[in-house]
Amino acid sequence: MNRVARPAFLDPDRLFPLNPAPRRLARAIYDSVKDLPIVSPHGHTDPRWFADDMAFPDPAQLFVTPDHYVFRMLCSQGVDLSDLGVPRVDGGATETDGRKIWRRFAENFHLFRGTPSRMWLDQAFVDVFGVEERLNAASADRVYDHIADCLCRPEFRPRALFERFGIEVIATTESPLDDLASHQKIAASGWTGRVITAYRPDAVIDPEFEGFAANIEKFGALAGVDATTWAGYLDAHRNRRAYFKAVGGATSTDHGHPSARTEYLPQSEAAALFAKALAGQCSAEEADAFRGHMLTEMARMSLDDGLVMQIHPGSFRNHSSQVFARHGRDKGFDIPMRTDYVRALKPLLDAVGMDPRLTLILFTLDETAYSRELAPLAGVYPALRLGPAWWFFDSAEGMRRFRELTTETAGFYNTVGFNDDTRAFCSIPARHDVARRVDCAYLATLVATGRLAEDEAYEVAHDLTYRLAKQAYRL
Amino acid sequence: MNRVARPAFLDPDRLFPLNPAPRRLARAIYDSVKDLPIVSPHGHTDPRWFADDMAFPDPAQLFVTPDHYVFRMLCSQGVDLSDLGVPRVDGGATETDGRKIWRRFAENFHLFRGTPSRMWLDQAFVDVFGVEERLNAASADRVYDHIADCLCRPEFRPRALFERFGIEVIATTESPLDDLASHQKIAASGWTGRVITAYRPDAVIDPEFEGFAANIEKFGALAGVDATTWAGYLDAHRNRRAYFKAVGGATSTDHGHPSARTEYLPQSEAAALFAKALAGQCSAEEADAFRGHMLTEMARMSLDDGLVMQIHPGSFRNHSSQVFARHGRDKGFDIPMRTDYVRALKPLLDAVGMDPRLTLILFTLDETAYSRELAPLAGVYPALRLGPAWWFFDSAEGMRRFRELTTETAGFYNTVGFNDDTRAFCSIPARHDVARRVDCAYLATLVATGRLAEDEAYEVAHDLTYRLAKQAYRL
Amino acid sequence: MNRVARPAFLDPDRLFPLNPAPRRLARAIYDSVKDLPIVSPHGHTDPRWFADDMAFPDPAQLFVTPDHYVFRMLCSQGVDLSDLGVPRVDGGATETDGRKIWRRFAENFHLFRGTPSRMWLDQAFVDVFGVEERLNAASADRVYDHIADCLCRPEFRPRALFERFGIEVIATTESPLDDLASHQKIAASGWTGRVITAYRPDAVIDPEFEGFAANIEKFGALAGVDATTWAGYLDAHRNRRAYFKAVGGATSTDHGHPSARTEYLPQSEAAALFAKALAGQCSAEEADAFRGHMLTEMARMSLDDGLVMQIHPGSFRNHSSQVFARHGRDKGFDIPMRTDYVRALKPLLDAVGMDPRLTLILFTLDETAYSRELAPLAGVYPALRLGPAWWFFDSAEGMRRFRELTTETAGFYNTVGFNDDTRAFCSIPARHDVARRVDCAYLATLVATGRLAEDEAYEVAHDLTYRLAKQAYRL
Repeated sequence: MNRVARPAFLDPDRLFPLNPAPRRLARAIYDSVKDLPIVSPHGHTDPRWFADDMAFPDPAQLFVTPDHYVFRMLCSQGVDLSDLGVPRVDGGATETDGRKIWRRFAENFHLFRGTPSRMWLDQAFVDVFGVEERLNAASADRVYDHIADCLCRPEFRPRALFERFGIEVIATTESPLDDLASHQKIAASGWTGRVITAYRPDAVIDPEFEGFAANIEKFGALAGVDATTWAGYLDAHRNRRAYFKAVGGATSTDHGHPSARTEYLPQSEAAALFAKALAGQCSAEEADAFRGHMLTEMARMSLDDGLVMQIHPGSFRNHSSQVFARHGRDKGFDIPMRTDYVRALKPLLDAVGMDPRLTLILFTLDETAYSRELAPLAGVYPALRLGPAWWFFDSAEGMRRFRELTTETAGFYNTVGFNDDTRAFCSIPARHDVARRVDCAYLATLVATGRLAEDEAYEVAHDLTYRLAKQAYRL
Repeated sequence: MNRVARPAFLDPDRLFPLNPAPRRLARAIYDSVKDLPIVSPHGHTDPRWFADDMAFPDPAQLFVTPDHYVFRMLCSQGVDLSDLGVPRVDGGATETDGRKIWRRFAENFHLFRGTPSRMWLDQAFVDVFGVEERLNAASADRVYDHIADCLCRPEFRPRALFERFGIEVIATTESPLDDLASHQKIAASGWTGRVITAYRPDAVIDPEFEGFAANIEKFGALAGVDATTWAGYLDAHRNRRAYFKAVGGATSTDHGHPSARTEYLPQSEAAALFAKALAGQCSAEEADAFRGHMLTEMARMSLDDGLVMQIHPGSFRNHSSQVFARHGRDKGFDIPMRTDYVRALKPLLDAVGMDPRLTLILFTLDETAYSRELAPLAGVYPALRLGPAWWFFDSAEGMRRFRELTTETAGFYNTVGFNDDTRAFCSIPARHDVARRVDCAYLATLVATGRLAEDEAYEVAHDLTYRLAKQAYRL
Repeated sequence: MNRVARPAFLDPDRLFPLNPAPRRLARAIYDSVKDLPIVSPHGHTDPRWFADDMAFPDPAQLFVTPDHYVFRMLCSQGVDLSDLGVPRVDGGATETDGRKIWRRFAENFHLFRGTPSRMWLDQAFVDVFGVEERLNAASADRVYDHIADCLCRPEFRPRALFERFGIEVIATTESPLDDLASHQKIAASGWTGRVITAYRPDAVIDPEFEGFAANIEKFGALAGVDATTWAGYLDAHRNRRAYFKAVGGATSTDHGHPSARTEYLPQSEAAALFAKALAGQCSAEEADAFRGHMLTEMARMSLDDGLVMQIHPGSFRNHSSQVFARHGRDKGFDIPMRTDYVRALKPLLDAVGMDPRLTLILFTLDETAYSRELAPLAGVYPALRLGPAWWFFDSAEGMRRFRELTTETAGFYNTVGFNDDTRAFCSIPARHDVARRVDCAYLATLVATGRLAEDEAYEVAHDLTYRLAKQAYRL
């Protein structure tokens, strides 16, 4: 991407080792990868941005209201989510004045000191918008006006930013109940940006999902089968997966379950659970078993259709009943839980784990699993790969810990590059940049401590930045 | 505090980063906070020291016999606790010769290499007593004599040391069954040192506490109510909390439970559990549920009276049956356990977690909870704050891990400064000094790696050292 | 050991701190310990090597086929174990051409970047065989030929290498069902190398072990008692332990259980469980209780015969059913599990934990237990010591974490030096070298940050490298 002159608060050597020799080496390795295209195989940008290419409405709508990293921190210090424009379930009034929201954000900007949000925001302000002063209460209006002015200009429309960011491919995430209209519109538009979807079937796999039975009806209708029978239900998955591949360019599926539990039940038992689920009669244990069995079914389908599989387990969703009742899902109250993988994955791995045609990418919110469970599993099963540091851990320290805790057991080549996993479009270059810096710092440290040769470090850096993501996600 | 010339073994730059630039910066930041007053909002010093202002009896009674960090390490290498003067439950003979105890300690001083105790002891020897040689078998008697001589002098009495240490306020910890006589005596004495209490009601909240029913009788008597009814019991808490505020200056409560479990039961159910507890008929599960419910009751009372609430969960107390039988509680055999917070705190948080008037400070002995559970919780709930690294982790590496594992998710401003949490009075300046050094080193590293501006680092250092503790504990 | 000129890819300062001052100090400390004899108190070398002193067959049989660290990584990227010569349970064909196996290994050598295997292999290639180029597809044949040539020469026979490696003593590990013929042959040969055994009774303690009842028959026969009664069974242990001491020079026992659970049951209850175990009628829970009880029995026997006890818990053995069926045990599919120690060890510790005559060395594959459970336990119980970083964690980062997470609570003197724990004979000098480097780096960092005096660092380095292993294992 094009870069404007940077103000002093964006250190060109940030995140590099402190010693002169490895610092120089980290910078040199980084220079060799910093301009590589962005491959973003997992994320939550809105495909309508690229389909419609409308201007973003205002700085608050771009940086504050949709970013749960940002509004959760403000909430933690007593700022009401309604005052940040976060919509209410009951349709009640929330703040709509972008400038007022922005000022609340700016007054509290010190809360982000030491957080990755601060790094992403600073870099987006500077690199994307050319802001030249630090955000605080005093500069709030000036920064707001500057960004607001930018947003009116065509070069700040989504497609222009996509191109300026150097995105080679970006994956969005859709439910099988989505018709992929935006992806079709993008394809029909002649625009060459590659925006693909990913198949995220939680709404039709989790018996505890809101409206499960109705979702299955709609699922069958979209797939053109009767999805209320077990055989029809599996066919509906096959059809929608094929549709997501053909129409949305999908190369992967994604599964967000409370735990990593898998099962491989006899078909009759799975069918019986499905019938109970449809009837709304699953116990919590049965719902969990059904979800676990479906992971193995998804893996088996992946062997047929080649879709790469991702599992993102271990989040206690919507922890605050009060916030869930008032503002709904995904409002920053998802909290990681201790997660077991060793026993949980065994049924699936016994079924398909030794098959190198399958790629199953594992994520965790429980960092204790990195060295104890995930690296040992990914370091031996041909089907397994380790996803990058995720969510609370897609930060400088989090990514450093990921490398330190996984590389010695799983090496680099059982990992899959970086995921930005974000709804915050303008943070994408910054997030990838942080990952590249942390990896280069790690590699330079390995070289400086005699654990890797210098020529290998350059090669690994290129692999981690670009090749492994393309290879693992079959892009 | 006044400082004597330091011998070579106390490096003025200890714990700072190794690279010249961040080392200089760490030193500069540290220089800006090192002389700030000590705010000690949680600890276990004996209020009688400050009430009576008597000389400490001898070096062994000051440094060895009361400090479980010290005698547990000696015990681990086969030194009998009786030979260190630790009292026996049966009143049997234990070593009473301070010099003999000191010699055993000195002969084994190498055991403390690399431990925080070693840092605290060295600094206390040098800074408090002006000792000029390292402790070992050869120097044992000389060091003993030197310290013993000091202890005879008025400037080594508790109040003089309190003032010399620069303590602005220190909190002790008392049971509701305590009459706060020492605190009253301090207040009546005209001495200006601020020694406050904290309300620690485990003895009247935990049905499994020794003498629970008798404790409740006494509790009611002190509160002037019949505490054997549920309503009376809650009133007794209200009364004693008010007494602790008015007479002891308390601004906080503290709760040491086996787990972080909370409950918010219907009042009738809580009343029934209380009746069972009084009758000694609670099962282990019922006792646990009652403790959990009482945390929510305490939080609700905090909304009324403004006392800040602390939870210190997760210690398996008195692990060795043999040592407990011979020497009783608190003899170094408390061992951390794996602790869950996410499900455990939900009942309390659903009741009061979104109310910014409440401040609930969480501690852990399970460091895996820092990044996985506690930082995510404190980083979103307005009522939650993260207590500092505690007990086994109030060390250089422990405090570094605390910052590295919590800052990126919870920031600095959901933390509350440092707690020394100690019975070892002379270690207090050293403990605060270590915390200040580690924080300054961390901040300097953030600056040197481009994650924080230099002016912000100074401001954060001041906040971590002084302002946040005063604010969080309402001091 | 004698050292050949090293090619550039083996940095003489590898693993040392990056800053000049601590780097120099680390080098100086390392120079003081690098040539100390190797004490290897726990491992899995084959005693027949030293008994028969035959040449190793070829480079692949030496470096690839027996080393599960190596073949598991190749397997993780889709290389079939059969193609690496790993034997099949059904006796089916596997690759026998060492050169072909070696080429597969060399082509995939980049997979080991950043892993400890890479460090051990590089160092063994250079230091043991004088290889002068990096292994890769291009150099595969040259390196193979060079090593194969070496293996034909007498100075590369096992005894010559043992002497060249500077091994003062090495322990192998045998089952009580082993007759120790190789150890007897070594003793009778007049060769002065000290190769001792260790008593590893899992096959006669674990009711779930393959062939448990038949094992007990054989066990009794070897011990000359009827081991099918509870009293006879305990006598058989006493007899075989005595035999292992007398004939095999054993100073230790070793126990590899799924968990750290201990029990101390009434003898009648233990006897009843044993009878059930013999009859193949134990439930999983009963088998676990029996294993737990036997740990306490073993500890009690250790009080009598002085054998040091080791517990290696927490591995989920043979995770892949498919690989277990095809290739059997120990094929790289052992995965660590979360392990609890605090409750698990209490029965044993209440029985014998305060007795300083016992030495019980604890290991873990769950690094979260280091600071939370193991250091606090070893830092207070006289009978406990902390084993070094084990298996997935006997690496540079793993050993650093071990020191950082245990030293502050348990000190250095509740640890026991290094274990190489390996079947890969040529990696032994490299593994000990890595441990010495990491420890020296850690000590130099403590000195540079003012936490340890320089003279103490030299003394601790000597203790960690040599003295503590000899003392703890009574060698």
